[in-house]
Amino acid sequence: MSGLQVLLVAGTHGNEVNAPWLFEEWSKKPWLINTNGLSVCKVIGNPLAYKSCRRYLERDLNRSFLFGSCDAQSNKAYEFERARELLSLFGSSSDQPCQLCIDFHSTTAAMGSCLVVYGRRPADLALASLMQARLGLPVYLHEGDYSQTGFLVEAWPCGVVVEIGPVPQGILNAKIVEQTHIALEACLGEIAKARSRMSNFPKQLVIHRHLGSLDFPRDSEGKVESFIHSSLDGADWHPLCSGAPLFISSDGDVQRFYEDESVVPVFINEAAYMEKNIAMSLTKREVWPFSNKWSLALEDLIQD
Amino acid sequence: MSGLQVLLVAGTHGNEVNAPWLFEEWSKKPWLINTNGLSVCKVIGNPLAYKSCRRYLERDLNRSFLFGSCDAQSNKAYEFERARELLSLFGSSSDQPCQLCIDFHSTTAAMGSCLVVYGRRPADLALASLMQARLGLPVYLHEGDYSQTGFLVEAWPCGVVVEIGPVPQGILNAKIVEQTHIALEACLGEIAKARSRMSNFPKQLVIHRHLGSLDFPRDSEGKVESFIHSSLDGADWHPLCSGAPLFISSDGDVQRFYEDESVVPVFINEAAYMEKNIAMSLTKREVWPFSNKWSLALEDLIQD
Repeated sequence: MSGLQVLLVAGTHGNEVNAPWLFEEWSKKPWLINTNGLSVCKVIGNPLAYKSCRRYLERDLNRSFLFGSCDAQSNKAYEFERARELLSLFGSSSDQPCQLCIDFHSTTAAMGSCLVVYGRRPADLALASLMQARLGLPVYLHEGDYSQTGFLVEAWPCGVVVEIGPVPQGILNAKIVEQTHIALEACLGEIAKARSRMSNFPKQLVIHRHLGSLDFPRDSEGKVESFIHSSLDGADWHPLCSGAPLFISSDGDVQRFYEDESVVPVFINEAAYMEKNIAMSLTKREVWPFSNKWSLALEDLIQD
Repeated sequence: MSGLQVLLVAGTHGNEVNAPWLFEEWSKKPWLINTNGLSVCKVIGNPLAYKSCRRYLERDLNRSFLFGSCDAQSNKAYEFERARELLSLFGSSSDQPCQLCIDFHSTTAAMGSCLVVYGRRPADLALASLMQARLGLPVYLHEGDYSQTGFLVEAWPCGVVVEIGPVPQGILNAKIVEQTHIALEACLGEIAKARSRMSNFPKQLVIHRHLGSLDFPRDSEGKVESFIHSSLDGADWHPLCSGAPLFISSDGDVQRFYEDESVVPVFINEAAYMEKNIAMSLTKREVWPFSNKWSLALEDLIQD
C-alpha cells in the first residue's frame, strides 16, 4: 500500500452542492469513480454549512487556513475550528497524512470548468499543467492579493481548486455534476500516472495571472449603483479591450474599461463575491514554458 | 387625488435582489419609473433578510400571511411580525390602504418573465389578462395546494406576483433588472387605463393551472438520489410528453414521465424550492374565455 494519499474536498462552501452530492453518491456506490488505484480520503469541507445550504456559518472556511495568525489559532469561530480539525485529520502530523488536496467548488459565474492555483508552488503548477493538457482547462493563478488569504489547499503540500459553473447556489445540475465527475477522475488519473512516472508533461502552461479585482461602482453611502453591463455578463475568459463596457447604471450611464493592454475578466458577477465587494477579477493571460522543477517537485511528493 | 393606491413590493425574499435594487434606485431617481399618474406605495418586503441576502430569517414571509390561524396571530417569528406590520401599514384599516398589490420576485429556474395568481379572484384574473395581452406573459395559477398557503398578495383585495428569471440568488443582472422595470411600468400602465375605463380586455386568458408538484427521487434516508435530467433543465413552459426523461441518477438510471395527457412543468430546479421538496411543479395549459365579471371586479376596486 502506497503512503500516497489524496485528499478530496467538496462542500468547502456549503451552498455549492454538486460536488458534495457526488461524494455522497460515491460513498453509496463505490464503483462510481475510478480512483486509478490511488488511496483517497474524501471529506465534506463544511458539513454544518452544507446542511443548512449556506456558504458558511461564521466566516468563509476557504479563508480560514491562517495558521500563522495568533488570532486564527485561538479563535472559536466554527470555520477556524473546522480548519484546525481538517488539518488534524489529514495534515502531515495526522494518522492519514495527505500529500495532495483537490478542492471542488462551483461558481454562479459562467467560468465553465477551470482550475485555481494559489501562488507558484512548483508541484501545483505541475499538476495544473497535466490537467490543462488533459482537459484543456483554463488556470487562474491567484496571487498577490493580500485581502484574500487562508485558502484550504494551501495547507497541504500540493493542492488545486476545481471550479465549475455556472450554476446557482443550492441546486443540483446535471452538467455540473458530470463536469465535476470528469475533472475528479482526470485529476486522479494524472496523479496516478505521475506516481508511475508515466506523465506526459506539456511544453507550456497557459495561466491567467491575477492582477486585481474591481468592485461595483457605489454611491456615497456605499450602495451598488451600477451593475455588470449585459455585454460582459457571462463573458468570463474573453479578453476585455479598451473601450469595452463594464457597468451600467439604472438610468443607462455606462462605465467602460480603458487600458492600453487587454485583460481577461473572471468571476464576473459571482454571487458569493458580492459580500467581498468583487464585481469581477482581472487577469493577464500568459504562456509559461514548462519547468522541470515543477515535475520534479510533484514526483518527489508522490513517490512511494 | 385618487383614493386608489397600488402597493409595490420587492424583496419579499431577501436573496432576490434585483427588484429591491431597482426600487432603491427609483427612490434616488424619481424619474426612473413612469407611474402613469398612479399613487403607489413601494416597500421592501423583508428588509432584514434583504440586508443579509437570505430568503428569510425564520420562515418564508411569502407563506406567512396566515391570519386565519391562531398560531400565526400570536407567533413571534420575525416574518409573522413583518406580515402583520405590512398589513398595518398598507391594509384596508391602515392610513395608506392599498387596493392592489404587485409583488416582484426572481427565480433561478428559466421561467423568463411570468405572472403568478393565487386562486381565482376575478380582479386578479382581469389584471393578469391585461398584462398577458400587453406583454405576452404566461400566467401560472397556483391553487389547491394545501401545503403552500399564506401568500402575501392574497392579503390585498387584488394582487399578482411577477416572477423573472433565470438569475442566481444574490446577484444583480442587467436583463433581470430591465425585465422587472418593463413589467412594473406595464402593470402600472394597465391599472391606470383600467381606472380610466380605457382597458382593452382580451377575449381569453391562457393559464397554466397548478396540478401538483414533484419531489426529487429520494433514497431510504430521504436523500436526493437523482437530479433533473439535462434535457429538462431550463425547459420550463415546454410540454412534457409521455416518455420524456424527468430525473437521472448518478449512475445513469433515468426516471421518465408517463401520463396520457401532457403537462407543462414550471419552477424546474428552483433553488428556493429544494427545502420545500419541490423539484418542479406541473401545470395544465388551459384557455379560458374572458369573463365580464373579472373586468367589473377590477374596475369596481379601482374606481375613484
